[in-house]
Amino acid sequence: MKEYEEVPEGFKFYGTHVGIKKRKKDFGLIIADKVCHAAAVFTKNAFCGECIPIGKEHIKNNELQAIVVTSGIANVATGKTGRENEYKILKKISNKLKIEKENILPSSTGLIGPQLPIEIIEGFFENHPLELEVNYENFAHAILTTDQRIKVRSLKIGDVKILGIVKGSGMIEPNMATMLAYILTDAKISKQAIYPMLKIAVDQSFNTMSIDSDTSTSDTVALLASGHHEFKQEELQESLNQICKELALDVIKDAEGATKTMFVTVKNAESQEQAKRAGKSIINSPLVKTALFGHDPNWGRIAMALGKTEGLIFNQNKVDIYYGEYLIFSKNREEKQNSSKIAMYIEKNEDIYITVDLHQGLESFQVIGCDLSYEYVKINSDYST
Amino acid sequence: MKEYEEVPEGFKFYGTHVGIKKRKKDFGLIIADKVCHAAAVFTKNAFCGECIPIGKEHIKNNELQAIVVTSGIANVATGKTGRENEYKILKKISNKLKIEKENILPSSTGLIGPQLPIEIIEGFFENHPLELEVNYENFAHAILTTDQRIKVRSLKIGDVKILGIVKGSGMIEPNMATMLAYILTDAKISKQAIYPMLKIAVDQSFNTMSIDSDTSTSDTVALLASGHHEFKQEELQESLNQICKELALDVIKDAEGATKTMFVTVKNAESQEQAKRAGKSIINSPLVKTALFGHDPNWGRIAMALGKTEGLIFNQNKVDIYYGEYLIFSKNREEKQNSSKIAMYIEKNEDIYITVDLHQGLESFQVIGCDLSYEYVKINSDYST
Repeated sequence: MKEYEEVPEGFKFYGTHVGIKKRKKDFGLIIADKVCHAAAVFTKNAFCGECIPIGKEHIKNNELQAIVVTSGIANVATGKTGRENEYKILKKISNKLKIEKENILPSSTGLIGPQLPIEIIEGFFENHPLELEVNYENFAHAILTTDQRIKVRSLKIGDVKILGIVKGSGMIEPNMATMLAYILTDAKISKQAIYPMLKIAVDQSFNTMSIDSDTSTSDTVALLASGHHEFKQEELQESLNQICKELALDVIKDAEGATKTMFVTVKNAESQEQAKRAGKSIINSPLVKTALFGHDPNWGRIAMALGKTEGLIFNQNKVDIYYGEYLIFSKNREEKQNSSKIAMYIEKNEDIYITVDLHQGLESFQVIGCDLSYEYVKINSDYST
Repeated sequence: MKEYEEVPEGFKFYGTHVGIKKRKKDFGLIIADKVCHAAAVFTKNAFCGECIPIGKEHIKNNELQAIVVTSGIANVATGKTGRENEYKILKKISNKLKIEKENILPSSTGLIGPQLPIEIIEGFFENHPLELEVNYENFAHAILTTDQRIKVRSLKIGDVKILGIVKGSGMIEPNMATMLAYILTDAKISKQAIYPMLKIAVDQSFNTMSIDSDTSTSDTVALLASGHHEFKQEELQESLNQICKELALDVIKDAEGATKTMFVTVKNAESQEQAKRAGKSIINSPLVKTALFGHDPNWGRIAMALGKTEGLIFNQNKVDIYYGEYLIFSKNREEKQNSSKIAMYIEKNEDIYITVDLHQGLESFQVIGCDLSYEYVKINSDYST
């Protein structure tokens, strides 16, 4: 059997087809050999899936031993029955693996509205053994909806390994609304430290990107630490930040219909919060996004998006706008001489770097977005039923 | 000469080609026979055009006698020179018409960045007489950018006439970012009453619509009252509200690439503000908009957009979602039996009514939006230079 050197000690995987989707894998498990210190962050969408409140309850004591994911149906807006179905799944897995069901984090991704085919799922586990593997590939496939590919990143520092697996890219399939990310490490992290560490990494990565400004009903990012190796927290934090950044970028790169990625940095704002809000206003502007798709160096739309940012303090006369290294707006006038160079820059590159320097304060923030293409409209206007 | 019965007493118009655009009319004037009581509301975009601060200054005393509009260039992000050019235009018109330049409201719409060809404009007026007309059509054409048609509405109550002229539809042309609306009446409105009356009408109309969530840099809505007829303020307010609603709807109907109009009513929220914010979240969701374009009764996306509304207080179990008269979501579950009727409803109608009943409070609000089509992407991704 193939070696999976990048898998942290103490974790095994499972991925199969139980019958939620027609043919593709639709059920995944991550199991730790013992209870891990764990943390998780969840969607802020108030109209959330049935897994979310259960997950929040189970993570309270910062302990987890397993993650169970069903894909194809999101179990969102399914009410009491949806909640009961989720508990039935946890009970089955708990009995089968001899794991406290309170130590299992459930996730579900897929269509909003329908109920999970619970009899089919329960039936499957009555008739099938649960063969765990060190190979994460079946799991990574089992959590996909219509993602183009599995998205896995790993990292090794000293004896410590970190493995991240993510799924989703905005709203790939009509009715679909989920990003799931699981980060595993065999490093030792205290119960007190693990949530703050995850929060820092998520704020610098997943929370800096936007594909279509729509907030999923089931987003979940979880970190499990099996505690096999002691390690310096600072270095671990850096590695965690890096993994999360790479995973976030993988999601953007798999964004529906996207042809370009834009990295927008707002520099010298009065606060990071203002810089972030201004950046989000730019990457979420349909006019900035369509201009990028059209290879149009349309800085006026960046100025417009900057100007509509709520609570942003800036002086129009001090604002500089750059594409890559080329200045296009400064001292309240257009730097016309750079237009053709910028058109070329956009034409030639997939990653477009836009910098807005407010010369107002000392705080900066970078956000990541993508363009808005015909393909996005096509994918999302296709009939869902 | 044709009679223009709908034109309120005391107003004349002018519209011509001075040379900002290649061929089309690009300069418009509205002149009152005497100083009017007036009010105006302007864009909230902090990155605003040079006309905006001048207009705010000139409207302070609630008096105006003329409106001057240049189209083709927005005079946005043009700095000191742009400001000076605007004053040169006002000076020319002021001398020519013997009107205090402080009583003129300037507007400019078109490309962001370039300077107005001020010599050409000044030269034009040195060599051309200013022939005013009761016919508003030349003016209505002169303020257009790439609007599909002129948009004019009028109303008569007793002796009083109200005329409204609007231009714009989101961001029709790349780099374009303006909606201008002028409402004229021969009713008498006091200086104290005129701004509140306009504000009420605008909040119920223009401020309830969104085409692409992008805020223009030059939006202006102005009301001029020539005071020829006394009239009951309540009735006048109603008529003003109606005219503004009709003009706003004209703008939405002319929205770029739009195939359908959506009227989203959020009912029984805790506050009007919450109902409005929830409605805006729905009409601005790219996924709700693309679903509408695809005739997809995708209520899950409405639930998602509702859920991501900041500060909205609601209970998922109490939410009802309707398309037209058909219930699709209630008691936290899908009303499957109505799906096909709803698909038919969307297929057959251009105006789609969506109702979200929160059963939470007593306040309701309706917002107006449109779908997101290939054509929108095409129009806005076309190269601007």
